[in-house]
Amino acid sequence: MKLSAVLFLSAVSTVLAGRTLVFPTQTSTSYVEMTPLKPLSLRAFTLCMRVATELSGEREIILFAYRTQHYDELNVWRELDGRLSFYLSGHCVLFKTPELGPMETHLCFTWDSSSGAAAVFVDGRKSLTKIYRKGHVIRSGGKVILGQDPDAYLGNFEAKQSFVGEIGDVNMWDTVLSDSTIRDMFNGKKVERGNVFDWESTQLRTNGDVVVVNREL
Amino acid sequence: MKLSAVLFLSAVSTVLAGRTLVFPTQTSTSYVEMTPLKPLSLRAFTLCMRVATELSGEREIILFAYRTQHYDELNVWRELDGRLSFYLSGHCVLFKTPELGPMETHLCFTWDSSSGAAAVFVDGRKSLTKIYRKGHVIRSGGKVILGQDPDAYLGNFEAKQSFVGEIGDVNMWDTVLSDSTIRDMFNGKKVERGNVFDWESTQLRTNGDVVVVNREL
Amino acid sequence: MKLSAVLFLSAVSTVLAGRTLVFPTQTSTSYVEMTPLKPLSLRAFTLCMRVATELSGEREIILFAYRTQHYDELNVWRELDGRLSFYLSGHCVLFKTPELGPMETHLCFTWDSSSGAAAVFVDGRKSLTKIYRKGHVIRSGGKVILGQDPDAYLGNFEAKQSFVGEIGDVNMWDTVLSDSTIRDMFNGKKVERGNVFDWESTQLRTNGDVVVVNREL
Repeated sequence: MKLSAVLFLSAVSTVLAGRTLVFPTQTSTSYVEMTPLKPLSLRAFTLCMRVATELSGEREIILFAYRTQHYDELNVWRELDGRLSFYLSGHCVLFKTPELGPMETHLCFTWDSSSGAAAVFVDGRKSLTKIYRKGHVIRSGGKVILGQDPDAYLGNFEAKQSFVGEIGDVNMWDTVLSDSTIRDMFNGKKVERGNVFDWESTQLRTNGDVVVVNREL
Repeated sequence: MKLSAVLFLSAVSTVLAGRTLVFPTQTSTSYVEMTPLKPLSLRAFTLCMRVATELSGEREIILFAYRTQHYDELNVWRELDGRLSFYLSGHCVLFKTPELGPMETHLCFTWDSSSGAAAVFVDGRKSLTKIYRKGHVIRSGGKVILGQDPDAYLGNFEAKQSFVGEIGDVNMWDTVLSDSTIRDMFNGKKVERGNVFDWESTQLRTNGDVVVVNREL
Repeated sequence: MKLSAVLFLSAVSTVLAGRTLVFPTQTSTSYVEMTPLKPLSLRAFTLCMRVATELSGEREIILFAYRTQHYDELNVWRELDGRLSFYLSGHCVLFKTPELGPMETHLCFTWDSSSGAAAVFVDGRKSLTKIYRKGHVIRSGGKVILGQDPDAYLGNFEAKQSFVGEIGDVNMWDTVLSDSTIRDMFNGKKVERGNVFDWESTQLRTNGDVVVVNREL
């Protein structure tokens, strides 16, 4: 009993500030579970992260997955053709953007149910707005993971869709932040902390080959 | 009678701050009419906007059209070859610039009749100055629309020239603003409001498939 | 006599601040002579300017020419292959830099005789330093012109080497300015005025098809 408790603790990262996650290799087993600060019952969101990857060419890359028992509630992807996308349990909304690559990119995805307005910000620059899933509500009760795409509830991972590279500074709000706030965040200025995920305090539970590295932003 | 009044009101946007226009698809029917704050009898202007579009390749794109009964008084284009241009009732002045694309670009066009100096600023960077239509005066008495190119007075639209994407923050002054003011505007700083068009207060009348989205800059 | 005096005056620009020079077409006759504030007997210099041109491909472009009776004392070029260079009466020093183009670029060239250190700053970013003409002294007694390369004293111009586009904010110091001063200048901040050429006060004598446009930086 005591041993398993220790193992459990060692897998929960206690470094609260300036950490970043490195997924060194392609696997179908490595992922990080993030515990949200509140249930993900959302009519709007801003989801930001910093990402760098040496993956390129025709390869899907999962960037963020929130799955309930039966639905992919919010999955964020780099698609086969390089476009960024997210899925709210159904068809996706796609964005043409500068390509992700080995130099770190700051990403923010925004969506608002009342208008359906969806956008992505790449290094502080806004894409054009798409109208998507107006009136929809994201449901609570699931799990959020980085590194894998769960085709079932925390399972059925596929290595070819896994994340390989570095990801961090993952923050989420239940509102759409202003353009200038997102630009400030990209520029490393302090902004209001995420009220769904706050990277400085969010508990991370790592599984498989994931390295947690300290880092000063 | 009452019904048509209600329809009329519903088409006039009453959101005064931080709105942006999304033209989701190519049409020959969707456009937005803007009501100016003063007659467009102009010996100089600065016309600014934020634009994002996934259109690419050999496609003309109308960015702004001011037409009187018989003349295209001031039409702003992205030309077939990607260059930006504007027409003051006649031949155009062309500018080689970085290409418009799906990430938002801030544009300002300036022209001064006394010298003929014409320039475009892309994300705060100035193009070279061209000498164009020295002594010319833009005439008042027409209509300004976004989304379509009117080959007749508010008619004869062509889908292949229509705007598809997002456009907003359209402001116009009857003077040439300084380079530093335009750079500040690109950077999201507050500058003096447009005295011909002020995006925060200008009445917009939408027609067809145009979505007005609230947005905090 | 009176007529020629009037013509002479009309050719001397009296607008002292915020002017810019437009060379609309390729000629072997259009140029602007600049009167320095002190003799160009120099053991060091910083020479800055803002330049935009739609010329591209394999084309030499003269950016600044200081010629005495028998020597090209200080000629600044965009070379055939796009590199920037300057010549102190003899072979040149070459710099690989981002290409000049139709969007305005801020350039500063620096050289110091005591070390031979030569560099160019493009939009505030420094090139690598080259060692060039250590111990050399630039001689006074010549003429400075923009727009043409004089192969003889103010003559033998070649259209294929002429400047076409816009040039302005040409300032020169008899010292090497600090990197941060040059970065501030690029960003439009006020710095100490040039003591060899001060664009705000330098007398310009235009010849041929050159348009002097007022401009607020």
